[in-house]
Amino acid sequence: MIEALLFDVFGTVVDWRTSLIRQLGDFGRANGLTADWFSLADDWRAQYEPAMKKVRDGQRPWTSLERLHRESLDDLLPRYGLGALNDVQRQKLVMSWHFLDPWPDSVAGLTRLKRRYIIGTLSNGGVRLLTDMARYAGLPWDVILSSDNFRHYKPDPSVYLGAAELLDTAPANIMLVAAHNYDLAAARSHGFKTAFVARPTEYGPRQSHDFKAESDWDFVAKDFEELASQVAT
Amino acid sequence: MIEALLFDVFGTVVDWRTSLIRQLGDFGRANGLTADWFSLADDWRAQYEPAMKKVRDGQRPWTSLERLHRESLDDLLPRYGLGALNDVQRQKLVMSWHFLDPWPDSVAGLTRLKRRYIIGTLSNGGVRLLTDMARYAGLPWDVILSSDNFRHYKPDPSVYLGAAELLDTAPANIMLVAAHNYDLAAARSHGFKTAFVARPTEYGPRQSHDFKAESDWDFVAKDFEELASQVAT
Repeated sequence: MIEALLFDVFGTVVDWRTSLIRQLGDFGRANGLTADWFSLADDWRAQYEPAMKKVRDGQRPWTSLERLHRESLDDLLPRYGLGALNDVQRQKLVMSWHFLDPWPDSVAGLTRLKRRYIIGTLSNGGVRLLTDMARYAGLPWDVILSSDNFRHYKPDPSVYLGAAELLDTAPANIMLVAAHNYDLAAARSHGFKTAFVARPTEYGPRQSHDFKAESDWDFVAKDFEELASQVAT
Repeated sequence: MIEALLFDVFGTVVDWRTSLIRQLGDFGRANGLTADWFSLADDWRAQYEPAMKKVRDGQRPWTSLERLHRESLDDLLPRYGLGALNDVQRQKLVMSWHFLDPWPDSVAGLTRLKRRYIIGTLSNGGVRLLTDMARYAGLPWDVILSSDNFRHYKPDPSVYLGAAELLDTAPANIMLVAAHNYDLAAARSHGFKTAFVARPTEYGPRQSHDFKAESDWDFVAKDFEELASQVAT
């Protein structure tokens, strides 16, 4: 029996790309700067996986996503003619990741699912980032679970197993909802139920994968509203 | 500048004693059992501090509050003529601690405070217990922080400092709200702001302390509504 639904967040619940491009553009206008904000957003996100991989592989100790976002930004800015940005400006840009807009179905779907199940995050974002985002976007989480809690990034087993331990239940009583097949595969390997929701515009023109379910996940839905109907809330 | 208000929960946000006595009575009626439920509730709670102390003092490894509640119950039941209760019945009683009613001002006060500040728990209860309680009692937490996250019980420094780390801010930007002077003293010693809200009926006739603020806490209020007015939400 499913007791809790845990959600991947970046891409699954929120449209990070559109939100980030908008905030970068706003920042540019406020500071009299122009740059290719679309490419900066995509390049910034593209550094996410390799940056986390070094932590996952033990090439460096636990490092928060906040810190990784800052390092990636520092690396990219000179290539965009923005190497002169000061520390306050850089921190402002890093904070953009805390204020991402939900997909149109996210809040309504979560609200329905919350009636019947515990709903929470299971994200590589930090606790503060996820808390700020929930307040900004109106995401009605019951509980925020983060890589921060386990000091490991998904798909490290300790994230999934640690979540089950904190929820004091068997993995089989938890369902991970994600737009990413790799995340669901890891969750299933540790006994979680799985639900895939496609977000085919997550990466914009660069999207190359996760257009559809690549396994027989327990549920496959086009959005959170359809998922809520499927799980019979 | 205060960014987040963290709350002690048992006694500060919820009236554990009245709720527990009611649930014990309901359990008795449903199972055709009679006992002095008032005393059982008080005795059960009285084992809370010494049970945690053994963990705090390192006499035993990290043990969840769920487990401590069960051990205390197993210890007490024979003295109340209830030694024949089976495992399912005992687990049912342990779960009573997940479903405690808020004080009359709690939800309204938290709702006002949430408009301006991040609000969260900082409790010796477990993540699952606090999550179940929030859903049951309608407590609008932004984030649930628990002894579970740090594998230490308050007033261990790692709970307060760990909370500040997860919220990615300085202790001075967090205020602990509690009905217990010892908890506020520990929080202040680690740099937190402090707010005392008296709950003089928490322990019923056995209450012997925490009738009033015993230090110059940053705020002293009679309930959460008054606190919300004081911090100018």
